[in-house]
This record gives sequence, structure tokens and C-alpha cells, in this order.
Amino acid sequence: MKTPVKSPGKAPEYEDEQKTFAALIAPDIIALLEDDPASIPIETEEMHAADLADIVEMLPAEKVTAFLSALSTERAADVLEYLNEDLRAEVLEAMSAGQAAALVTEMTPDDRADVLDDLEEESADEILAAIPAAERAETEKLLAYEPDTAGGLMTTEYVSVSAEMPVEEALAAVRRIARSERREAMNAIYTTDAEGHLKGVMSLRELLAAPEGGRVADIAWEEVVSVPATADRELVARLTREYDLIAIPVVDDQDRIQGVVTVDDVIDALVEEHSEDTQKFGGMEAIDAPYTQTGLFTMIGKRAPWLTVLFISEMLTAGAMQHFNEELNRAAVLVLFIPLIMSSGGNSGSQATSLIVRAMALGELGLRDWWRVLLRELPSGLVLGALLGVIGFFRILIWQNLHLWDYGVHYHLVALTIGAALLGVVTFGSLAGSMLPFLLKRLGFDPASASAPFVATLVDVTGLSIYFYVALVILRGTLL
Amino acid sequence: MKTPVKSPGKAPEYEDEQKTFAALIAPDIIALLEDDPASIPIETEEMHAADLADIVEMLPAEKVTAFLSALSTERAADVLEYLNEDLRAEVLEAMSAGQAAALVTEMTPDDRADVLDDLEEESADEILAAIPAAERAETEKLLAYEPDTAGGLMTTEYVSVSAEMPVEEALAAVRRIARSERREAMNAIYTTDAEGHLKGVMSLRELLAAPEGGRVADIAWEEVVSVPATADRELVARLTREYDLIAIPVVDDQDRIQGVVTVDDVIDALVEEHSEDTQKFGGMEAIDAPYTQTGLFTMIGKRAPWLTVLFISEMLTAGAMQHFNEELNRAAVLVLFIPLIMSSGGNSGSQATSLIVRAMALGELGLRDWWRVLLRELPSGLVLGALLGVIGFFRILIWQNLHLWDYGVHYHLVALTIGAALLGVVTFGSLAGSMLPFLLKRLGFDPASASAPFVATLVDVTGLSIYFYVALVILRGTLL
Repeated sequence: MKTPVKSPGKAPEYEDEQKTFAALIAPDIIALLEDDPASIPIETEEMHAADLADIVEMLPAEKVTAFLSALSTERAADVLEYLNEDLRAEVLEAMSAGQAAALVTEMTPDDRADVLDDLEEESADEILAAIPAAERAETEKLLAYEPDTAGGLMTTEYVSVSAEMPVEEALAAVRRIARSERREAMNAIYTTDAEGHLKGVMSLRELLAAPEGGRVADIAWEEVVSVPATADRELVARLTREYDLIAIPVVDDQDRIQGVVTVDDVIDALVEEHSEDTQKFGGMEAIDAPYTQTGLFTMIGKRAPWLTVLFISEMLTAGAMQHFNEELNRAAVLVLFIPLIMSSGGNSGSQATSLIVRAMALGELGLRDWWRVLLRELPSGLVLGALLGVIGFFRILIWQNLHLWDYGVHYHLVALTIGAALLGVVTFGSLAGSMLPFLLKRLGFDPASASAPFVATLVDVTGLSIYFYVALVILRGTLL
Repeated sequence: MKTPVKSPGKAPEYEDEQKTFAALIAPDIIALLEDDPASIPIETEEMHAADLADIVEMLPAEKVTAFLSALSTERAADVLEYLNEDLRAEVLEAMSAGQAAALVTEMTPDDRADVLDDLEEESADEILAAIPAAERAETEKLLAYEPDTAGGLMTTEYVSVSAEMPVEEALAAVRRIARSERREAMNAIYTTDAEGHLKGVMSLRELLAAPEGGRVADIAWEEVVSVPATADRELVARLTREYDLIAIPVVDDQDRIQGVVTVDDVIDALVEEHSEDTQKFGGMEAIDAPYTQTGLFTMIGKRAPWLTVLFISEMLTAGAMQHFNEELNRAAVLVLFIPLIMSSGGNSGSQATSLIVRAMALGELGLRDWWRVLLRELPSGLVLGALLGVIGFFRILIWQNLHLWDYGVHYHLVALTIGAALLGVVTFGSLAGSMLPFLLKRLGFDPASASAPFVATLVDVTGLSIYFYVALVILRGTLL
């Protein structure tokens, strides 16, 4: 390599550009692999493991193992932690169990468990068997937790000291650990009693700033926010955010510390949660991997069930239409506005649902707030419905008077029907859209399942009935 | 207070419970304010400022200032940082400018700027004028940045040392700073040259672990991921996540460090970004505050514009219906399935849009990928469309044969029309839903504006035309 490898210090605006950077470096790496593999560790010394992982993703498959072998085991393990999951599984499965175990052992405990979770069970068992006993036990313990819980996110590499320890001794201990061992989570230091019960927390900076001669207990905060290992990642994320934490300790039911969830894993959990919520709101099951890494049939499998359920529910509209068939034959002009009225209810419902689902996810609204929300969505819906109703009303009058279309002699009444139906349907949309998440939560489902298409379907069926009943009232004696 | 105040160490499952905890403590605090305000600092000493803020939110308005005055200025400033924005603005505006300035001065620089940004301009100016000159200049500098950029998120309280400094000297300097000053961002330490150019980064832990006798430059990482002050918060969040950072330095165009964005602010930005995206996807403008803190008319103002635009676009469906009015009169049976067919296209479009919008937000897909996505959504759409088409086809045959409804002598052809239309409309929905975000991005709009209702509207109008043309082909010579 002529120029020293430069990581994207000037941050690229798009992931595109970052990949372009990796693509630029990849040929140099390939050349080095042929000519002078021994120089690779030095040439790449200052690069962030995440950038090296981007480069690995650009290498031809047969070069990947050679490249990882050229790095130190520790460094190669770092790179693997940042590699895309599918490629990482491929790479590890292609290695001997011993080789893979050496790499996996060097990973942080939480990533080690995540990686093994992604492998075929057989390969994972082989690799696990080849890991040294201490790391194996630790990994097996972590693998026992659900991936989406605090236990599944936590690492066991945290630092705790006895609450009774003098400050200087604790600092020396922390320094010794920092020098000799790899501890992922060192920015917060926990204090425990002799039985391992969580007693306090301090930042590394607070320990550093502590006056000499005191005890650790004097500077540690006694009130520690912690979570049980079974806590959902959403709760972990919310507490981390509310208390501005960089790590949150995970305790068992005796309040003994089991591990900590570090903020980088909280961020990953938040982003994944957001992806899942977005996809659910779009009316499908959440996909577990990036769009580009999800196979065509997996994708169809995630979309088909909801699409089918919604389709079958929507068949009720055909039933409603059949029910009002006679009226539709007599007042055919009503047919023209069916799509307009249906969609307006769905849109207003989709707005209300997006508001409530999000407020619930953030803990701003709980079940007990349903009544408050209802009292708010009612006027919102009425105002918005009146707005669209007035526009719809004048739309018909204008078209009629400009002779763009003939809505018949009773066009005033038709216009009134459309206006009144819009008022009713948009209001109903707001109410149904805002109450659906509460109903789902009450029934024990995820309120985020209240998707835009779900609400639209709900509102379509009812909206049609509202439309036809309004027409029956207003047009009775004239068209109906 | 009888029992020592206990923060929710056992994490509450819902924000509800956390508030309940605050509500339990609030009466004790009120009693103390009457009887023995001097004891408040000690009684609340171990509580997290976030919990104290929850309690403040429970206090009667007239007690808030008394409570804050009972705390030390530093502690009161901490509590203010966690207080809900509206209440915080009220509290500060109710104080004298001098009192408010004393509190605001104690805040971290980024929060100080955020707080002043929320106040009425007049109050903000008065308070700013009463802040000591150094802090005022710093705050004014931060206020000049857009709130959603790296500059708007950053704090100026970071620690940097000269790259040439010996390790022991740097550690002593950091320790001195930790003891004497308040520095928000101390977990990462930056190295600079004499002109302040960013040269490297190390964690506090790496500094602590460094062998004695070396220079700081030997242990610092030379490749530092940084962002310009104008970078969007989305980019800040993405880089923080990709490189697992706890702070990201912000540089000017000469690569001189201006401040750092700490991970807690990145998390807040991510969560806000998510709320905005969810609301946009629901078909409205994003609200800036929590649902419960947004006024009724603000809320309506955020919903009405999109609802109106969608309504007016959807009027095209009435046009399409008028266009095919004659066919509808001849083959009235077709009317029955209009809602079913329209909604299926919208649902499939909504799924595709949610997938693409999210993949774009994560940087997984860029503009150049549109063709790849199109080639993927086409088969997805065809398979899903065929699935619904077959269900729809048999639905009609079954209803006819069970004598639930009479679709006429040509019911086979009607069933075929519905099936074929579903195939076409669902496929079109997938294609339109996946391409809309690309189109918006290409035109310079936010791809996240591709909301579920937007896609549904787009697909409704086209879907109706597809339906009628399919009917014209299949039913020509029989019903049409």
C-alpha cells in the first residue's frame, strides 16, 4: 500500500460512500495477501475493526480466511464482531472447529453468544465444545437467555469492587484489570457486598476524581437502576435513555449482579426495535435481517400471512356492499364516492394509530389513558372530518355547476350525504385508530401490531356502513 | 420521610409505575418543604436527578421553585435537565433572570443551549445576559447551530490533551480535570496538535491501562471517526452505532475539534427520529413534543395538511369511477369488489414502503439500488398477488355454489376478473410502494414522507383503472 490506510475520518454522508472506501482498499489488501501477508497487521493497525469488516465484506470468499489468519486472533475476533451475520456464519462454518473456537473465545461474551446463536446448531455445538471450559460455561449461561431480554443483551465482562475497599486500592485494582484483562464494560464500576449483592455504582471518572483516603462506598451512588435478566429490551432501552446511562446492570431475583448491558448494545436494540415496529406498522411480520440480506421466500413468508388475514377481513366489505345492493342500484351515484370515503377514514385512522403506538412504545401512554385519548381524538376527528366534509360537499356542487358531471336533480342532497358521511367516517377513523392499540394491549398483544393496513381494513368495513346509513337518512324519499 | 428514599432500582415495567413511585414520594417532599427544607438535600442525596425531576412534575406549581431552591444550584440544574420541556420553560420564566441564569450556568453547555432554545426569545435573552461571559459565549456559539445537527447536539465539555504528552502526565491532567471541573464527556479523551487539530482518541480505560513512560500518541488511535458540525443527526447516530462509540468528536473544516456528541444525546436523537418517522409513515407531519404535551390545535395542524392533500388526490378515484360509469352500470356486480381490490393493493404497497423506507434510513439501500429492489419486488408482488387472486377467485365460486349470493350466469368470468385484477393490483402495489421512496429521494424529498396513506392513495387510483381494464378484457362480449 502506498498511502497509509485512512479510515473515513471525514464521515461519509451515506453508507454508500463508506462502502466505496472499503472497495478502494480491498484490492490493496488482496495484493498484500499475495505478496506480504505478514505486513497486514501493521498496515491495518490504526483502522477501526468496523472498517476492516467492511473490507472483508468486499473480499472474494476464498480470501476471507487468509485475511483473518493474517491478523492476530484478538484483532480477527474484533473484526468478526462487526461482520454481517450471514457472512460471519459462513466464515466460521468453513473453518475447523478449533480455529473457529480460538476466534470465538477472543470475542466479548455477549457477542460470542450472539455469534453461536446464528450458526447451525451442529457447528455451534462443535465450536462450543472446543472453547476453554471457563468461557464455555459463561457462554452457555448467556445462551440460555432470550436474545431480546436484558440477559440476552448483557456481557459478563464488567468490573465490580467491594464497597468497603479504600479508593486507592480500588483504582489500583481497576488499573490492573484494565491492563491485564479485556473488560468490555469499564466506564461504570459497581460495588457489591460479600455476597455479590449490588450496592452502588460510580463512573470510572468519579473513581478517578475521588479524594484519597476514603472508601469506595463514600463515592458510589447507592441507588442503582438495574433490570432483571428477563426484562424486555424495550425496558432496558427506556431506562438507559431516561437515566442517561452508559451501562445498566442486570441482577437476579436476589439483587446479585449477573452482568451489564452496555450502551452500544442498547443502541443496536433500539434500532432493531424501530425496524420491527416500522415493518409491523406497514402491515407485515418483522424481518430479522436487513432487507438486502433477506431471501425472497422469507420475505414473502413475512408478508403473506397479514396480507391474507387483511384480505379475508376486507371481504366483509363485499358483504356490506351486497347488503346495500338494492340501495346502490337505486342510487348508483353513491358508488362513485365509495373509494374516496373509505380511504379518508383509513388515512385518519392511520394517523391516529401512528401517534398512539409510538406514545405507548415510549411509555408516554399506558392502558389507563384510553379514556383521555378518546376524549382528545373525538374533537380532532370531528374537526378533520368537518374539513374534508366541506371540501367534498363543494367538490360536488362545483362539478355539477361547471357541468363536469351530472349527479342528478338531487345533487344538493348527494353533496350533503358525502359531506356528512366524511364527517362520520373520519371521526370514526380517528377513534378506531386510536383505540385499536389500547385494545390490542389489553388483550395481551403487541400494540405495535395495530398497523396502518389493519386500521384501514377496520375502518373500511365500518366506513361503508356509515356511508350507506347516512345516505338512507338523507336520501330517503328522494333517491332511496 | 420515614424510610430512606428508594429509587426504582427494581426497574418498573411501565413508565406508569415509575410515575407512581414519584407520586408516592411527592407528599413527603411537600411535608419536608413546610417543616424542614434544609434537610431536603440530604434526604434526596442518593436519588437520580431523573427521579427528582419526576417528583417535581408531581408537585403543585407553587412548590416547584421552593423545592429547587432547597437543593444546591448544581443539583437543581441537574434536575432541570431531566424535567419536561414545557414545565422547565415555565419554571425558568417564573424566576428572576438572575436566579434562572445561576441555574442555567450550572447546566452542561448542550443542555443550556437546548433550554434557552425552548424559552420565549425575550426571557432567553434576559437569562443569557445574566450568565457569566465565558459561558455566555460558549452558549451563543452552540445556539448558532441547527438543533438537529452535530453542532446542535454537541457539548463543549470534552477533554483533550497534547499528543506529545507523556502518559503519566496526561493521566494526572485528566484526574485534575475530573476533580476540579465538570466535564460531561470524559470517557473518551482526544489528542490534538498545537493548533487543535484532532489527532487521535483513546478511552479513559486505555489511558489508565497505558504502560508508564510512553507518550499519549503511542496509545491513542490515530484514525478517529468525526463529523462536521453541520452533519445531520441521522449520520451522527449511524456512525455512533457502526463504530460502537460513546462519544463522537465534531470538527470544523480544518479538522479542529469543536465539541463532542455524547451517546446519551445520540440515543435521544435516535428516539426522536423514530417518532418522527413513525408519524410521517402514518401520514402526518411529525409532532415535536410527546403526544400528551401537544395541544389539540397543534395536533390538528399537523394532521390536516396531509389529510387534505391525500383527500384531494383521492378525488381522482371519483374521476376514474365516472370514467367507467357506463361499464359499472352494465356490470353492476363489479361494484361489489371495488373496496376489496383497492385495499389489497394499498396493503401490499404499505408493506413494500415500510421495508424500503427503513432500509434507506439505515443506509442499507441507496438511490443506485432502485433497479435491484424493483427486480425483487416484482416476483414478491406476483406471488402475493397470485395468492390473493386465488383466494378471491374461489371466494366467488364458493358463494355462488352455496347460493349465498348470485353473481349472474357469467360468475366464472366474474371470478376470473377478480382474481386477475388482484394479481395486477397487488403486484402494482408492491412496485409502486417500493419505488415511491426512491422517487422522493431522487427529487430531494425525505423518503420517509412515503407514508402508508400516500402509497394507498397512489395505488387506489391506479388500482381502480387496472380493475376496470382487466374487466373490459375478460368480460367483453358477455357482461361488457
